[in-house]
Amino acid sequence: MKELSVVGKSTKRVDTSAKATGEALFTADLSLPRMLVAKVKRSPHAHARILRVDTSGAERLPGVRAVVTSGDSTGEKWGVFRYTQDQAFLPSDKVRFIGEEVAAVAAVDEDTAAAALDLITVEYEELPAVFTIDEAMKPGAVLIHEHNPGNINVHVKIDVGDVGKGFAASYYVREDTFSAPEESYFQTEPYAVVAQFDNSGNLDIWMPNAGPHLKAKPLSNLLKMPLNKVRVRKITIGGAFGGRSEISPADVICALLARKARQPVKITYTREENSIATRQAHSMTTTIKTGVDREGRVLSRDITCHMDGGAYSSTGPIATSVPFLCMEQAYRMENVRYNGYRVFTNKPIRGMFRTHGRAFACGIDLQLDLIGSELGIDPVTMRLRNARQAGDYTPTRSLVPSCGMTETIEKTAEQAGWKEKWGKLPPFHGIGIGCNSVQTGFPMGIRGGSTAFIKFNEDGGATVISGVVDNGQGNENMIVQIAAEELGLLPEDIQIITADTEVTPSDPGSYSMCETFIGGNAVRLAAIDAKEKLFQVAARALEAKPGELTARDRRIFVKGEPERSIPVGRVIRMALSKGQSIAGEGSYWPKVDPRREWVENPFGQLSETFSFGTTMVEVKVDPETGLVDVLEAWASQDVGFALNPKVIEGQFEGGFTMGGQGGMLTEYHLWDGGRLLNPAQLEYRLPLAPDMPKINSIIVESNDPTGPYGAKEAGMSVAMSAAQAYVSAICNAIGAPIKEYPITPDKIVKALEEKKKKA
Amino acid sequence: MKELSVVGKSTKRVDTSAKATGEALFTADLSLPRMLVAKVKRSPHAHARILRVDTSGAERLPGVRAVVTSGDSTGEKWGVFRYTQDQAFLPSDKVRFIGEEVAAVAAVDEDTAAAALDLITVEYEELPAVFTIDEAMKPGAVLIHEHNPGNINVHVKIDVGDVGKGFAASYYVREDTFSAPEESYFQTEPYAVVAQFDNSGNLDIWMPNAGPHLKAKPLSNLLKMPLNKVRVRKITIGGAFGGRSEISPADVICALLARKARQPVKITYTREENSIATRQAHSMTTTIKTGVDREGRVLSRDITCHMDGGAYSSTGPIATSVPFLCMEQAYRMENVRYNGYRVFTNKPIRGMFRTHGRAFACGIDLQLDLIGSELGIDPVTMRLRNARQAGDYTPTRSLVPSCGMTETIEKTAEQAGWKEKWGKLPPFHGIGIGCNSVQTGFPMGIRGGSTAFIKFNEDGGATVISGVVDNGQGNENMIVQIAAEELGLLPEDIQIITADTEVTPSDPGSYSMCETFIGGNAVRLAAIDAKEKLFQVAARALEAKPGELTARDRRIFVKGEPERSIPVGRVIRMALSKGQSIAGEGSYWPKVDPRREWVENPFGQLSETFSFGTTMVEVKVDPETGLVDVLEAWASQDVGFALNPKVIEGQFEGGFTMGGQGGMLTEYHLWDGGRLLNPAQLEYRLPLAPDMPKINSIIVESNDPTGPYGAKEAGMSVAMSAAQAYVSAICNAIGAPIKEYPITPDKIVKALEEKKKKA
Repeated sequence: MKELSVVGKSTKRVDTSAKATGEALFTADLSLPRMLVAKVKRSPHAHARILRVDTSGAERLPGVRAVVTSGDSTGEKWGVFRYTQDQAFLPSDKVRFIGEEVAAVAAVDEDTAAAALDLITVEYEELPAVFTIDEAMKPGAVLIHEHNPGNINVHVKIDVGDVGKGFAASYYVREDTFSAPEESYFQTEPYAVVAQFDNSGNLDIWMPNAGPHLKAKPLSNLLKMPLNKVRVRKITIGGAFGGRSEISPADVICALLARKARQPVKITYTREENSIATRQAHSMTTTIKTGVDREGRVLSRDITCHMDGGAYSSTGPIATSVPFLCMEQAYRMENVRYNGYRVFTNKPIRGMFRTHGRAFACGIDLQLDLIGSELGIDPVTMRLRNARQAGDYTPTRSLVPSCGMTETIEKTAEQAGWKEKWGKLPPFHGIGIGCNSVQTGFPMGIRGGSTAFIKFNEDGGATVISGVVDNGQGNENMIVQIAAEELGLLPEDIQIITADTEVTPSDPGSYSMCETFIGGNAVRLAAIDAKEKLFQVAARALEAKPGELTARDRRIFVKGEPERSIPVGRVIRMALSKGQSIAGEGSYWPKVDPRREWVENPFGQLSETFSFGTTMVEVKVDPETGLVDVLEAWASQDVGFALNPKVIEGQFEGGFTMGGQGGMLTEYHLWDGGRLLNPAQLEYRLPLAPDMPKINSIIVESNDPTGPYGAKEAGMSVAMSAAQAYVSAICNAIGAPIKEYPITPDKIVKALEEKKKKA
Repeated sequence: MKELSVVGKSTKRVDTSAKATGEALFTADLSLPRMLVAKVKRSPHAHARILRVDTSGAERLPGVRAVVTSGDSTGEKWGVFRYTQDQAFLPSDKVRFIGEEVAAVAAVDEDTAAAALDLITVEYEELPAVFTIDEAMKPGAVLIHEHNPGNINVHVKIDVGDVGKGFAASYYVREDTFSAPEESYFQTEPYAVVAQFDNSGNLDIWMPNAGPHLKAKPLSNLLKMPLNKVRVRKITIGGAFGGRSEISPADVICALLARKARQPVKITYTREENSIATRQAHSMTTTIKTGVDREGRVLSRDITCHMDGGAYSSTGPIATSVPFLCMEQAYRMENVRYNGYRVFTNKPIRGMFRTHGRAFACGIDLQLDLIGSELGIDPVTMRLRNARQAGDYTPTRSLVPSCGMTETIEKTAEQAGWKEKWGKLPPFHGIGIGCNSVQTGFPMGIRGGSTAFIKFNEDGGATVISGVVDNGQGNENMIVQIAAEELGLLPEDIQIITADTEVTPSDPGSYSMCETFIGGNAVRLAAIDAKEKLFQVAARALEAKPGELTARDRRIFVKGEPERSIPVGRVIRMALSKGQSIAGEGSYWPKVDPRREWVENPFGQLSETFSFGTTMVEVKVDPETGLVDVLEAWASQDVGFALNPKVIEGQFEGGFTMGGQGGMLTEYHLWDGGRLLNPAQLEYRLPLAPDMPKINSIIVESNDPTGPYGAKEAGMSVAMSAAQAYVSAICNAIGAPIKEYPITPDKIVKALEEKKKKA
């Protein structure tokens, strides 16, 4: 590979100044001429039959321009798979959770819209409701969806090897149960939608999204419109974390109102609506039985996991297998059985989340600590002995082409001073480790690949047209660096056009860690295509063969002969003067098995490659108050190749904060039946900058054979392993296991009391 | 060629409903948050040295956000060629016409901006000024540009064959002089510009334009910004007619103000500013000496033409040769000499115009009538005997690959009932004919070609990305029809993205009749590229070879076997499910000689092909008042192939109205020295609907070998020949030649008086 000049460097992110100055507009900032404000009428009942909806009062209110109910929808239902399409936005039959959308109003201002909501009367017949997994699965429980007996939405079954034989051969076997309630993404940006129809029936729509193409297709289905009339427009996005990957009722409701009112319409969710009417993370109970040999190597595992999915499917079916898949990637396990159940309850809907299953991942990892402690093996050794290696197949038969799992463990242990600290820390001080792994792009069928165009301007600058979306992590910068590198230009020479479904070709979207691997590869291939044409022209001018050329710093050189060179801009103009334009096209489809039944029975190549992460934290626990003080953290990940170390460190720090500090100490949803008691920031405690320890980022590069320049995803394996490290460290500090998460002070105090009792 | 299903049909234009409902936004309709209003301070002098500009008073006025003068500009000068770059927008040395831009102000509202203009004081030293070609060329006349002796901007020299020998061999020779004053485009839409910078230094700019890429490059030069930071944005455009092809001082001034104020800025020109500060058509005096044989065939021509170019070059140098080139295309002429002079005067700047040279074209054509009358040959026969034929070379050595000149003459004569009417009409009734020809795209060097991208959506719809601009003539519809035809889709399946320099690849712009031929061909090639990929996938499904397939009505068929077919959408989804995206790219560069010195010494292939038009009108003249009543008109053009007959008829009617009814009866500029006396609609008389006769459109198809489906430009040859037909018919009606245009009633009355005197 030629020496790299742009990728691998910590260049300034292209979105920095717009975001720092406030110039960047988010959806809620948009204002279109004649734009109306919309509000949603929501169900006060957790489960009730809708008998009658009367909107006549609202329609008569001056200033009201449109009212929509189920009668205005097409009747199409949403679900990420055909067989899980169970949610009619604006349902006509019954409501299934408190906060479900029943009607909506567009009016000239917010006060009028709010007043109109009060004039809509809905007659309900209340039904019994279920709020927990146990209640929902109890024989005779009310059915939330009549075609789902036992209220079971999805049952994932995996059975590899011979679990029974594995346990029989084990030196030591233990079983534990772990649990965690729901948690929230709490994206800084509130959910908002702006929709506008033109007279040709084209819909322009803006909303925070993890993939405009991911939004456009279901919108076209649900609105019964051709796909090329649904134009999801580029907008700055304030975070996704898995929660903005799918269509939302607000998208469809806003479009229906705009169509009916023949005016642009904006919906901006309150913080409360963000917490009950957008996707959030599942609650979960996981029972894990693990058998190991004398050296702590896992011989067999049997895992049963129940997840509370809330009232509808949404993307939840995918989330049912992912916690298992992450852990089977991180650790070797020969014989393994997994039964995962997603259960319907009369609560808001759960979906994909950045850290897939606190109770699952932390359970697997804490159990390794507990087993190690029985066998006299320290946690790092336990993990090294079970760590995934390159060339392995996972139990569900994914080849792992590159793997830095061991290197992340070793480097983190070394930098954290593991050997010096383990077992030698003062009382109530602890150190812990977590390891995890994630996919770089799920197979999403015909929307699994990315295509990019590149065109040259006559001054030598280039424009990249790509469907890749940046919802905060720096994807636009990633594209710019890759295109600049490949074309021999500087980052400032690259203009990008992204995340607008009208302009850009299809792209899987920024979920499941797709964008660097899939979108980045597509941009690289488009640049290579354009470069080949560029080199053909340059070769004539330089009297060389195209294969002898290389591009860098806005010039094309004969390799090894720096004096034989020509500026890129001149080559472009030479081509143009001969009637040739330089442009390129590239597509990348991850090599995954598209036919496998990967939701209920995953088998085959799940993702083309995987990332691996290890996090360690050192903590001090106050035994009186149960308060945890995180002293320092070491976050390491195999990112394949660091396209931009500074951006990656930002992702490590963000992931660590969300997965570890927030996810394991303070963040959870609190319920009164189906009513969420802590929907807003005052009650739902997100970590703030002063809460954070020093985080040492350790980048490991395994140079993936197919990633762009060897790159894989960056940050997600840290987010997940951070959660595990918190549990490991706190349990080490107090000398007792805690199996319910997050680890709030009361749980620490209680664990210490129980430990004292036993002693 | 396969049977066509979309092109060739009068499908509804895609822009119809937006324009009919008022939904379409023009630049003056735009409103951006925090947008300022700008006004321009203009010179009250026709020629003066600028001694001092004091803007301090304006800067102190509350509400003023930015003031710019020559000190804020980069000093770069504008001109369409390097050697004609003579106009510094916001000049520092001197002003050269009344209305020239000296300073500009951006303020919170229009009143404040206007008040601020009054607070700018400019000290001038007045200089002698010249207002006519004769004054300007007089020895010792003041020089407007010191490097242009005799105030001659451009001298075009063409000398083909042996003119002297030609005249010597002639049976009859005559010489006449024809003249016409300046005229205006009078686009319905006023000129306006909106400019906005973001914090990354990217400029977004909107303005009426005939080609966004044509605007972007000079803007990047004049603002000294990289081309990919200048983003000319798509906007609805209310007409161009040759007058919006080049950068305008308002574009640069608006951008400078926006950069200085750090806020968006809008300039909207008043009607007066439209007439003095945007380009308008040249005035012209043409002396034509023609020698013919006994049958009226032209043996030799010697033409001298002087054009008043106003104070700067702009696009005027191109306009100096075009009137000649059009006529050498229309009529055979073996021996010919042309001397064309563009002369600077202290008047507003002249540029390209839809009808190139009233005094030129009408002179050539009326002279044929006059010669015919001497020889006893009727005008139609005169034209048939001199008509250009396919396979000919023009005197300047352009091959004419397809030519329907004769067919347009014959069909028009037949439908107009020429034989029945010529010489047999009542007194003061007349019938006349005009013939002309235009290019389909000039070679503009590295901006002469067009590139298009096409991408498929998964539901089988497609999106075309093209730099083609539609400034009213229906170019967007042209693209949609071509793409739909080629891809086997319906027009409603095609989404287009055009005329935005950031998104779309380069395109020559909608001037010189480029778009159908060049842009249309590029779109067709991109569609063919995408279709090839589509057919490869479809061939596997249909168990056929790609070459055996054809696409139509959203399906792909095995040719001749209508039962073996598959929907396009399904093929797209089949490809996507195998990890293949269907997209295409196409470029078209017209085959012209790029190296010829085509402005001052045109030679070689000027345009890849040419259109040809014939117009006839029947008139009745009131000998008392001199008023002309046009009874009926027949407009015919060889358009190559009629992509959309209805759209073409619209172009014929528009061209006829502008070139004939307006251009020959009522439209002209009236001057007091350098001051324009009729800048606005009240004094400058445009034809209105009730003024118009019935126009019979006659479409002739010569099926050009390289045009898309055989198509060439549509409408321009009608616009020009209409002017000629008016002159021919009026002179026939009154029995006397009129050589000064337009033919206002006073000229008719005077001609009749002179005729009476002679009799």
